[in-house]
Amino acid sequence: MNYSLIVYFIGRLMRIEAVLLSLPLLVSMIYKENRGVIAFASVIVISFILGWALMRIFKPKDKTIYAREGFVMVALSWLVFSSIGALPFVISNEIPHYIDAFFETVSGFTTTGASILRDVESMSYGMLFWRSFTHWIGGMGILVFVVALLPGVSDRSIHILKAEMPGPIMGKLVPKLKDTAKLLYLIYIILTVTEAVLLLCGGMPVFDSIVHTFGTAGTGGFGIKGDSIAGYSPYSQWVITIFMLVFGLNFNVYYFLLFRKFREAGKIAEAWVFLTLVVVSAFTITLNILPTQEYSGFGEALRYSAFQVATVISTTGYATTNFDAWPALSKAILIVLMFIGSCANSTAGGLKISRVIILFKSMGAEVRKLLHPRSVTSVRYEGKPLDKGTISGVKTYFAFYIMIFFIGFIAVSCDPWAQSSGFNAFETNFSAMVACFNNIGPGFGGVGPDQCYAGYGYFTKIVLSFAMLLGRLEIFPIILFFAPATWKHSKKK
Amino acid sequence: MNYSLIVYFIGRLMRIEAVLLSLPLLVSMIYKENRGVIAFASVIVISFILGWALMRIFKPKDKTIYAREGFVMVALSWLVFSSIGALPFVISNEIPHYIDAFFETVSGFTTTGASILRDVESMSYGMLFWRSFTHWIGGMGILVFVVALLPGVSDRSIHILKAEMPGPIMGKLVPKLKDTAKLLYLIYIILTVTEAVLLLCGGMPVFDSIVHTFGTAGTGGFGIKGDSIAGYSPYSQWVITIFMLVFGLNFNVYYFLLFRKFREAGKIAEAWVFLTLVVVSAFTITLNILPTQEYSGFGEALRYSAFQVATVISTTGYATTNFDAWPALSKAILIVLMFIGSCANSTAGGLKISRVIILFKSMGAEVRKLLHPRSVTSVRYEGKPLDKGTISGVKTYFAFYIMIFFIGFIAVSCDPWAQSSGFNAFETNFSAMVACFNNIGPGFGGVGPDQCYAGYGYFTKIVLSFAMLLGRLEIFPIILFFAPATWKHSKKK
Repeated sequence: MNYSLIVYFIGRLMRIEAVLLSLPLLVSMIYKENRGVIAFASVIVISFILGWALMRIFKPKDKTIYAREGFVMVALSWLVFSSIGALPFVISNEIPHYIDAFFETVSGFTTTGASILRDVESMSYGMLFWRSFTHWIGGMGILVFVVALLPGVSDRSIHILKAEMPGPIMGKLVPKLKDTAKLLYLIYIILTVTEAVLLLCGGMPVFDSIVHTFGTAGTGGFGIKGDSIAGYSPYSQWVITIFMLVFGLNFNVYYFLLFRKFREAGKIAEAWVFLTLVVVSAFTITLNILPTQEYSGFGEALRYSAFQVATVISTTGYATTNFDAWPALSKAILIVLMFIGSCANSTAGGLKISRVIILFKSMGAEVRKLLHPRSVTSVRYEGKPLDKGTISGVKTYFAFYIMIFFIGFIAVSCDPWAQSSGFNAFETNFSAMVACFNNIGPGFGGVGPDQCYAGYGYFTKIVLSFAMLLGRLEIFPIILFFAPATWKHSKKK
Repeated sequence: MNYSLIVYFIGRLMRIEAVLLSLPLLVSMIYKENRGVIAFASVIVISFILGWALMRIFKPKDKTIYAREGFVMVALSWLVFSSIGALPFVISNEIPHYIDAFFETVSGFTTTGASILRDVESMSYGMLFWRSFTHWIGGMGILVFVVALLPGVSDRSIHILKAEMPGPIMGKLVPKLKDTAKLLYLIYIILTVTEAVLLLCGGMPVFDSIVHTFGTAGTGGFGIKGDSIAGYSPYSQWVITIFMLVFGLNFNVYYFLLFRKFREAGKIAEAWVFLTLVVVSAFTITLNILPTQEYSGFGEALRYSAFQVATVISTTGYATTNFDAWPALSKAILIVLMFIGSCANSTAGGLKISRVIILFKSMGAEVRKLLHPRSVTSVRYEGKPLDKGTISGVKTYFAFYIMIFFIGFIAVSCDPWAQSSGFNAFETNFSAMVACFNNIGPGFGGVGPDQCYAGYGYFTKIVLSFAMLLGRLEIFPIILFFAPATWKHSKKK
């Protein structure tokens, strides 16, 4: 393990975070929030100096990154970013307990959007901005950002990107890794600006527009109102619905559209399955909630249903209604969509649609193999045959995914609050784990859209924080970070 | 597809079922239940004549069984057995609607134990006997029975047994398949008689002892009292607890013990994991339910907790208390045990412990591979390295298992009853699918231990019937039976 390289890298990340924190500092200054200014300023100073010191002391001679270092660096950088990002909340006393602040910050960076705040409207502008800004940073990935912007990061860093970018197949859009990362950020910024402008045009205040755009772009879901998006105009709700889906789509689609390669864009299987799922789910739920008489007609029911489908499949977590009170079929569809999530190479979480497609296709191949034991069956994806490694990798990932889910579910069920509360504890604990592990945010019951995670104890909050990190980083970096074998000395290669 | 062989075989099965039905006929005669006598007698006559006719008309020239025929024969024989087995309930008018009777019979043969009877105590002795006897028949497998007992079944039938016997690895205990099947039935009968005698010694009435032994042996769970086993003595409860675990153990253990190969018996990894799981779960739940003050002390709490753990992990489904009212942690543990199930080569259902072990071991191998990409990693099970086909097969099975679970969950959630009822519909539908697919019986909420499945509509009852068959036959026979590709003409090999 190349320790000095890792520590050097962490120092670099701390300096980057100091720079990023200057934005909420600015917001606090604009709104004349003294406590916020002090909190952000002090964290910036500490973080910058500490980062500078680490970079001076640990100057690595060997800059090679092996797979092992890649995973450790990804896990560490997310842990460091979250640990430091939590400090302003504690220093300003707006979230007094550090574990609460850590949960909230992890929830921000992992674009989960699960909150421990009982009264979000009492927060200062600076803190609200920082909370939402973490979504935007985490959406595209902390290290994609590093690779895209910093000089001196070579193509060898592919191990890092592989570990941070979601999806079963790592796609380089253009030959050079750095250019791919830059291109992704360019697309990300264009889409972000577009949404903010559209929200502004609809009459949403400037601060609200920016903050909600951050939350949509990262598919995070932190809001600034007690009722999330419910109080905004139908126009704003539709804009957010559409952009939640936009950010849940495979970004390769936009790359191809940008370069007018329309045929290639149309060939991305994941995108079609994603859109089909959205349309079918939205209409089924609309028909399911119409008889409840809560909505004035098909149009209104469709607006609520489409919003909730978009928020859940894109793993954003905004809400315009308390979908916890919806009929069983609607809730069942939503919970299945929570597990599936959106496309790979998007800012969304979940298992990812490409994985689900590959799983189903390999199931089909298995049936064919049982019928014709001696024939050779191959799984094709987007016209090309998949190699066995990819298929096996997807199946292994799925096994990890489900096992970790159940282990987390048992751990969350140990919480005394969730055992004794009057609401349905099984549903609450189950959906809390679903919502955190898949980076969605709200679940059902005690953690439903009009509730929050404040009731859980600190042990559970730590468990759920790691569930969010496991979900966002697609399991392996976090597992490897805590595996003793990773830290054992091995022979030099 | 060798149609005439399949139809000939079905004819044979119908004659076997006619013979099996003579036992409940006898019970009805002893208790002088006229309607029962008429019902059983008429089904016996129809079934025997029809079976005889089919065997006469479709005499196959070619007796070879390929994999394809094997799967189809397994699926068909369970469907035929259930369809005929449901008739006495309808003819005697004790379960007037055929779909209800079909659900109850499938639940019996698949050793699920899910019931649509609101008042089981109003049933006649003959019907109660038949219901429980189906558990005993289904526990070991309909076709294992055929292979063991009938002449003219050759070792080529291995395809059939492979499809019917649970677990990832098909183990022949002795070189000849027929002898293996006979040996398994011998062990099964010895254990069955032992339990019945022990129950009788504890003062349980003869009829009750026989019926509950059938339910335990097949890990089925149909009872004859409204409160299942709760009304019997602590001694009887402990006997049943222990025998539920006995029948959930890998039968290879008993084979080795029978032949005094103690070392080999101790080497069966699955058995140790099974017992560890049972002990850890039982003690955790005991500590979790003690503070509820419902039980007089540690001993009583342990008795209730051990019984419920045994009933759930062995997928039996008896109950001595309404575990639906237990704290969240206990319920979470029970639901995870429901998914895991017991050992392969036992009469129990679920995913099977050997599969879970192999999944975890291959997850460990994956982590090692990520750390040392160029090294060769192998997964060892019971001292021997597993071949890649087995590991891949387990992972594929797991993918099928989870996907089918979620599809079934959505289908069950469509039921209007379960959407509008006052209880928690999410929990009810989720656990109904868990309990049927894993062949357990009772779930939580509206299908909890003191409830039944009568509330669901006929569509859902059919869905759940197939979930039970998919679970019992380990998915593939049923999937292949309904796959159009199975029935397409292919070139003669």
